[in-house]
Amino acid sequence: MKKTILIICDGLGDRPVKELGRKTPLEFARTPNLDKLAQMGISGAMNTVDIGVRPGSDTAHLALLGYDPDVYYTGRGPFECAGVGMEMLPGDISFRANMGTVDDELNVIDRRAGRIDDTEEIIKALNHTKIDGVEFILKKAVGHRVGFIMRGKGLSSKIRDCDPHKEGVKVHLPEPLDESTEAKFTCQVLEKFLKMSFDVLKKLPMNIEREKQGKLPANYFLVRGAGITPQLKSFKDKYGLNAVCLAGGGLYKGIAKLIGMDTPEVIGATGKPDSDLTTKITKLIELYDKYDFFFVHFKGADTLGEDGDYEGKVKFIEKIDSAIEPLLKIEDALIVITADHSTPCNLKAHSADDVPVTMFASDIRDDDVEHFNEKECAKGRLGHIKGENLMPIVIDLMGLAELFGA
Amino acid sequence: MKKTILIICDGLGDRPVKELGRKTPLEFARTPNLDKLAQMGISGAMNTVDIGVRPGSDTAHLALLGYDPDVYYTGRGPFECAGVGMEMLPGDISFRANMGTVDDELNVIDRRAGRIDDTEEIIKALNHTKIDGVEFILKKAVGHRVGFIMRGKGLSSKIRDCDPHKEGVKVHLPEPLDESTEAKFTCQVLEKFLKMSFDVLKKLPMNIEREKQGKLPANYFLVRGAGITPQLKSFKDKYGLNAVCLAGGGLYKGIAKLIGMDTPEVIGATGKPDSDLTTKITKLIELYDKYDFFFVHFKGADTLGEDGDYEGKVKFIEKIDSAIEPLLKIEDALIVITADHSTPCNLKAHSADDVPVTMFASDIRDDDVEHFNEKECAKGRLGHIKGENLMPIVIDLMGLAELFGA
Repeated sequence: MKKTILIICDGLGDRPVKELGRKTPLEFARTPNLDKLAQMGISGAMNTVDIGVRPGSDTAHLALLGYDPDVYYTGRGPFECAGVGMEMLPGDISFRANMGTVDDELNVIDRRAGRIDDTEEIIKALNHTKIDGVEFILKKAVGHRVGFIMRGKGLSSKIRDCDPHKEGVKVHLPEPLDESTEAKFTCQVLEKFLKMSFDVLKKLPMNIEREKQGKLPANYFLVRGAGITPQLKSFKDKYGLNAVCLAGGGLYKGIAKLIGMDTPEVIGATGKPDSDLTTKITKLIELYDKYDFFFVHFKGADTLGEDGDYEGKVKFIEKIDSAIEPLLKIEDALIVITADHSTPCNLKAHSADDVPVTMFASDIRDDDVEHFNEKECAKGRLGHIKGENLMPIVIDLMGLAELFGA
Repeated sequence: MKKTILIICDGLGDRPVKELGRKTPLEFARTPNLDKLAQMGISGAMNTVDIGVRPGSDTAHLALLGYDPDVYYTGRGPFECAGVGMEMLPGDISFRANMGTVDDELNVIDRRAGRIDDTEEIIKALNHTKIDGVEFILKKAVGHRVGFIMRGKGLSSKIRDCDPHKEGVKVHLPEPLDESTEAKFTCQVLEKFLKMSFDVLKKLPMNIEREKQGKLPANYFLVRGAGITPQLKSFKDKYGLNAVCLAGGGLYKGIAKLIGMDTPEVIGATGKPDSDLTTKITKLIELYDKYDFFFVHFKGADTLGEDGDYEGKVKFIEKIDSAIEPLLKIEDALIVITADHSTPCNLKAHSADDVPVTMFASDIRDDDVEHFNEKECAKGRLGHIKGENLMPIVIDLMGLAELFGA
C-alpha cells in the first residue's frame, strides 16, 4: 500500500497583490520543490467546502479529511478544547474562552486581561465547579486562552457568544439561540457560573497582587464558539489507515485528536510564522514506517495573510518550499499539497477563492502544469474539485478504494 | 432527428506505463480515426459514477445510460441472468453461478469443474426444483457459468456470496447480511437446495462418467452476486428512442435487455480480446434505418488491462480504431466514444481515474483537442463531467431535450 503525505498550508491562496506585480504571494515566491511536484504530478483548483463558500479553518479541515462540515461541525469550541488535550464526552458543551478584564458593570476593559499567561491559579480555583448538576471543566491553553467545557444532562450549544468581541461594551449575558428548554437551562447555569466566578476572581490573591502591580486582573471568562461534542467516526475506522498529525496549532491537533489521529509534539512547531517547519518533516521521516497517512499542517501563511503582510507570506511560502525538499526523495508515496482556504493579504481575512492542489506519485497521470500556484494549478487535469472529493481520490490512488459494483 | 451511436470501450482508460515511455496504451496507440473524431468534435474527461469512485462495469454502464446506480444497482446477478436471456419477475433473486467441484467436506477443489462446458444435463436435473414454495430457475451460460434465479414470496438479496472466490477452502454456507426474516428465509431455502443438489449431482450419470475419465465432477453451484430484480424504466419510455445493443459480453446484453433494448446476435462478437469488432459495425450499418440509438460495446481493452498486457491493449485499441472507420462516413449522426472506467495495466484492476469522452456531429461545437486519449480529452471544452451528464447532453444534441421554462 502506498503511504500518503497530505500537506495543508493554511490560508495559502491569495489574490493579486499590486506590490508583487499583480501576482499572488505563491505566484511570486521562488518554489522549486513545489514546482517539481506540480511538474511530475496532477494539479487542480479546489473549493474546500463549496464554490462561493468562505470556509473557516475548522470546517475546511473537516471537509478535506472527509467529514462533511454541514453534518459534523457543531461549533469551534470542541475542536479548540480537543486541541488543548481535553477529553470530551457525548453531550458536553465546549467553548473557546479568553480570560478577560471587566469592570463592576461588566464592561469589557481588556479581552485578554493584559495578555496574561499564568492562569493556573484561576483554573485551580474554579475547575470542576458544579452548579445544578452541571460540571465546569477548565484547562489552560496558550496565553490568556482557556479550554472551557460544561458537562451534564440536558445541555444545548444553541447559545450566543458571551464574548462581545470588542472592548468598551458590556459582556453579553448568556442568551439562547432557540426556544428549547435545553438552551434556556444551559444559559441559566452558565450565567450562574459566570456571576459566581466573577465574585471569586475579584477576590483571588493573584488578581489582588496583579492590581497592586498595576496589571489588569483576569476576572471574567469571555466564552464563545459553543459546540456540542461531534460524533466523528475515527479516521482509522473510516479509512483503515493509521494516521498521524504533525502540527503546531491547537485547532489542527484538536481536529486530529477528535478523529483519533496521533498528535506527537514537534519541537519548534509553534503554529506561528516563526515556526521551525523542518522539524515536522524530520519527524515525518522518523515516523515513516509507523504510519500510513501523514497530515502535515503549516499555519504561518494564514496568519501573515490576516496581517496583510504579503512580503512575510512570500518568505513563509519559500520556507515551506525548503522544508519539504526531503519529501521528494521518498519513493512510492503519494504526496498531496494544498491549502484549507485563501487568506488574501488585501482582504486580511479568509475568502471563498479556490486553492491550488497538486498530487504526486510515481504512477500518477501527469499534466502540463509547471508551477504550483493558484493560476497554473487551475489549468491542471484534476479540474475543479471540492474538498469532499480529495479523500476519495487519495484512497483510490493508494489502491484502497472499494469497487462499487463488479 | 439525429441518430446516436454510443461506443463504450470497456476499461479503456489507463495510467502511464513505463515501457510505453510513460504514455497510456491509448496515448501510445496509433488511432487516426478516433483522433479525427476528437479533432472534429468536442471532448472532455468523465468520471462515470463519481470523482474518486472505482466503478464496476455494471454500475458504470447504468450511470452512462442514465440509470443512477445508487438507486438501481441491486447486485450483479440480475444483469448476468438477463444477459443469458432469462426472464425476471419483480421480487426474483438472481445470482451469478459457477459449476464447481467440491469434496465431501465441501472444500472447493476447482471453481470451474475443470472448465466444464456441457452443463445441460445438470440443468435438466435440477431446473424448476421447488423448495418451501421457492422455485429455482437455471439456464446454461458461457462455459461453466449458469444463470441462477430464486422465485417466490418473501425473498431477500441480502445474503453473502456462497462462492468463497478461491480454492482449497470450504464453500460459504448461505448467510444473511441483515437481520430481516426475508434474508434468513432465503438463506434457509438456498441451503436446502445446495445440499439437495450436491446429493443429486454426485450421483448424476454424467458426473460418474467424468470421474471415470479422470475429469472433475461438476457437483456444486458456487453462487454469488445476489440481486433482486431492479425496477428499471425502459430506455424507450425514458427517452422515446428505439435502441439496439451490439455487444458480445453477457453483462452488457443483460443490462440492455433489462431496459428493453434489442440485443441481436452479432457473428464473431465474443466479448473477448479475439472478438471480431468489424461485425458489430457492419451490423450497425445494416440496422441503421431501424433504430434511433445504437449502443456498441467493445470489451477487450478491459480484459487486457486486467491481465496487465499493455502491448495487447495497444493492439486492441488500434483494432477498435480500424473497426469504427466506416462510421466516419455516416452523415448527420451523433457519435459518442468513451469508456465505462479505467483498467490500468499496472494495477490489473479498475481504478477511479476519469475516462476520455469525445462527441461528434456535423453541427457540434468543436474545440482544440487533436487526439482521443486521457490527457488530451481532459483539456477539451466539455470539461470534467460525470456519467449522469452524458445522456442529457446526448438528448439535447439529438434535438430532443424538453425546454425547462419558456
